[in-house]
Amino acid sequence: MSIIYVLDLVGTFAFAVSGALVASKKQFDLFGVIIIAFVTAVGGGMLRDILIDAHPINWIGDLNYIWTILIAVVFTFLFKSKIEPLRKTFFLFDTIGIGVFTLLGLQKGLNFNLHPFVALIMGMISAVFGGVIRDVLTRKVPLIFKKEIYASACLAGGVVYLLLNYLAIQEDIQFIISAAVIVLIRTVSVKFKLELPKVEDDLFSKKELQ
Amino acid sequence: MSIIYVLDLVGTFAFAVSGALVASKKQFDLFGVIIIAFVTAVGGGMLRDILIDAHPINWIGDLNYIWTILIAVVFTFLFKSKIEPLRKTFFLFDTIGIGVFTLLGLQKGLNFNLHPFVALIMGMISAVFGGVIRDVLTRKVPLIFKKEIYASACLAGGVVYLLLNYLAIQEDIQFIISAAVIVLIRTVSVKFKLELPKVEDDLFSKKELQ
Amino acid sequence: MSIIYVLDLVGTFAFAVSGALVASKKQFDLFGVIIIAFVTAVGGGMLRDILIDAHPINWIGDLNYIWTILIAVVFTFLFKSKIEPLRKTFFLFDTIGIGVFTLLGLQKGLNFNLHPFVALIMGMISAVFGGVIRDVLTRKVPLIFKKEIYASACLAGGVVYLLLNYLAIQEDIQFIISAAVIVLIRTVSVKFKLELPKVEDDLFSKKELQ
Repeated sequence: MSIIYVLDLVGTFAFAVSGALVASKKQFDLFGVIIIAFVTAVGGGMLRDILIDAHPINWIGDLNYIWTILIAVVFTFLFKSKIEPLRKTFFLFDTIGIGVFTLLGLQKGLNFNLHPFVALIMGMISAVFGGVIRDVLTRKVPLIFKKEIYASACLAGGVVYLLLNYLAIQEDIQFIISAAVIVLIRTVSVKFKLELPKVEDDLFSKKELQ
Repeated sequence: MSIIYVLDLVGTFAFAVSGALVASKKQFDLFGVIIIAFVTAVGGGMLRDILIDAHPINWIGDLNYIWTILIAVVFTFLFKSKIEPLRKTFFLFDTIGIGVFTLLGLQKGLNFNLHPFVALIMGMISAVFGGVIRDVLTRKVPLIFKKEIYASACLAGGVVYLLLNYLAIQEDIQFIISAAVIVLIRTVSVKFKLELPKVEDDLFSKKELQ
Repeated sequence: MSIIYVLDLVGTFAFAVSGALVASKKQFDLFGVIIIAFVTAVGGGMLRDILIDAHPINWIGDLNYIWTILIAVVFTFLFKSKIEPLRKTFFLFDTIGIGVFTLLGLQKGLNFNLHPFVALIMGMISAVFGGVIRDVLTRKVPLIFKKEIYASACLAGGVVYLLLNYLAIQEDIQFIISAAVIVLIRTVSVKFKLELPKVEDDLFSKKELQ
């Protein structure tokens, strides 16, 4: 579990840096940057814990999240111009974060005796809604609603986890395989610019009659 | 109670379709459409349950809400171009939804021993705040803050319910009369484009001195 | 404690008036104005109580908050054109509100056995996030993320309170000194237009090489 905890903090760090970058681009002051880094990094897990009544919620129960976020903001402050060249490294950390957040959220849901489908949703919320809250506070249309295979990667990895769990595969193996699925789908979809279909027209709309 | 449960799901369906339509107009992808349909349909009840500490919250405690929403999204996907001609039918379903959501929320508040006035607010939140969350996530100024008698219809119907409840009228009758009040006020106000007053000028402002 | 309770309601009144003014400028109707006044005044404490699982939450447990907000909306409706000349008085009430909200939130956090640092954050959330929710619902970038020493004043006063608390100074004195620190920092920063630094460039960015 220890390695997963480290990866959880690595993901928190990557999410916080991404939040801090968005906020500093929007000319937020130091306080605003900290808040946006904070909600990006722990907002998803916080929402999950409020929804399933898991108190103390994530960052109240474990102060390491706050310290990680503050370090990430200082890091962004010091090395902002150096982060762009490291884009690929950060994408990797970010993607690992998504995978770990999804699976830890899903596991927490199962531990709270939720229906597996609701637990799956909780995993997705953990990974995705920090970014949604960030986008709402910085007045952007949440990116994940429009583009990129992101939440879908979380859901796919979560389904794999539930299947392996059902088959009673060893727990570490479950986690590694499912996380790999999420990282893989996310990476491939960004590389090839894959997107989900949009509901612009229905099956019987005028276009196909032309 | 069974017929009310069916009407609750009918309202959920109508709210989910309305959310899906807004999201697809905004070019959201399938995932985004599902999320917006979801928050529109169960966001109000979810907020109510979090505020009054009613766990498991609505859609976690009863999976039928999720299934109804997913069916509504598929329905929107398949028949989008057919929904516009059915506008009046959908307005009816939507308005029934508002009435049922308000009264079920109010009843839940009373069952949690809230002050009747707070229970009334909980009824209004159940009916109205799903739409508010939808508007925040799709970057629109919440419509209900600007136009239309909407929340006011919920509050009026809720007050009628509390009165009938105080008079110890039979429970089914209470529900039917109060729901009818909500549907009626809402329908009349849309038909005649009634609006609430705005606070643009006060009683002693310059205008009246001219 | 009674005087602090009165100041709490004075702060609630001032926050509600400020929310009502923003909403009426945005052409919201009466219902919208009430909702925005409401979230501005009790939104921060409400968020705090949800995060730390303190039920009943602030305005559900004490109806005086709701009455105060409704009176504030009626007051704004009646005397809107008279409020601008009283700007300085309102700034004072607002600033007292910030101080009292911060310290009451912090105390509540300590009573819930939170880590002092988390309790400090709860104090800040109590004072600041009502305004953030107002800005999100009225589609403004939250002001406190961009300008003015606001949240920082809360945090500074909170730290003073924790220090005095650690030194076991008499409770009333703790409260008065810390509140004075918040009011002072806020007033001075507005008077001299002080702002927090922004993260526009890092220590090693190109600018300093030129």
